[in-house]
Amino acid sequence: MKTEELFTTTVVNSWKLVIGRFSEGVAPLNDEQLQRQVAPSKNRLLYLLGHLTAVHDRMLPMLGIGERLHPELDEVYIANPDRALPDPLAAAALKKAWTEVNSKLTAAFEGFTPGEWLQKHTAVSDEDFAKDPTRNRLAVVLSRTSHAAFHSGQAILAR
Amino acid sequence: MKTEELFTTTVVNSWKLVIGRFSEGVAPLNDEQLQRQVAPSKNRLLYLLGHLTAVHDRMLPMLGIGERLHPELDEVYIANPDRALPDPLAAAALKKAWTEVNSKLTAAFEGFTPGEWLQKHTAVSDEDFAKDPTRNRLAVVLSRTSHAAFHSGQAILAR
Repeated sequence: MKTEELFTTTVVNSWKLVIGRFSEGVAPLNDEQLQRQVAPSKNRLLYLLGHLTAVHDRMLPMLGIGERLHPELDEVYIANPDRALPDPLAAAALKKAWTEVNSKLTAAFEGFTPGEWLQKHTAVSDEDFAKDPTRNRLAVVLSRTSHAAFHSGQAILAR
Repeated sequence: MKTEELFTTTVVNSWKLVIGRFSEGVAPLNDEQLQRQVAPSKNRLLYLLGHLTAVHDRMLPMLGIGERLHPELDEVYIANPDRALPDPLAAAALKKAWTEVNSKLTAAFEGFTPGEWLQKHTAVSDEDFAKDPTRNRLAVVLSRTSHAAFHSGQAILAR
């Protein structure tokens, strides 16, 4: 493997590891268990699942991969705090959405060439990207990997 | 900037962002506030700080950067759960150790060439590395970045 390919493979492995651990944590939980809060008066596991699904779904257009699959999740799981609005999907449907969104992302990441990893994402202007070329797709994926790990650390407290 | 340098700069930025956020969270807290638990019967903030400092200190020899600075932290903050043993350092000294360890790591990361990022770490055998060249320094740093984000997600619950 060439240097650049090793870089991208290592990054995708890190993404898959973090996503896989969160998935393994929520997969065996039933609807009632997903209602557990990570700590008193903090987010429910279902909210974290919805939040991560919505944030990852946003990466599809942001990284030029495709249209969004679940824009209906933003209002409940990004724009509002937990329990402000009713959950739009049942737990099983939300788990399915989580898997679909990540599968689509991971397949795209595995196909990106090194040059494609360093292209700008659509949330940064041409002008800003010219000033700071580290505002690329790689930066977004590393940021979302850390974000998923951040909420995984919370989710594990509800086990 | 060349492709390979953009990759490494983007990765180091991600590390710095995660470490910086955890640091900003604990910096203003006094000894008493660091005794708070992230949730009932869960780890204290001080334990998380000690744990991350010890785990990061281990990266110094693991990535061939240098000798360990704080091996005395392992027994309390890695080998044992919170409150099993007395804290070996006062909060201010532990905060200082955290800063020192990360400064040394970050300086080394900023100096690694792309080829050095892809060298094997000392915890993997030559044989295993030949089979899987993604067990490199980059993989360790990505893993530790996710690990720090994981515990940051917990620490923020105690705010």
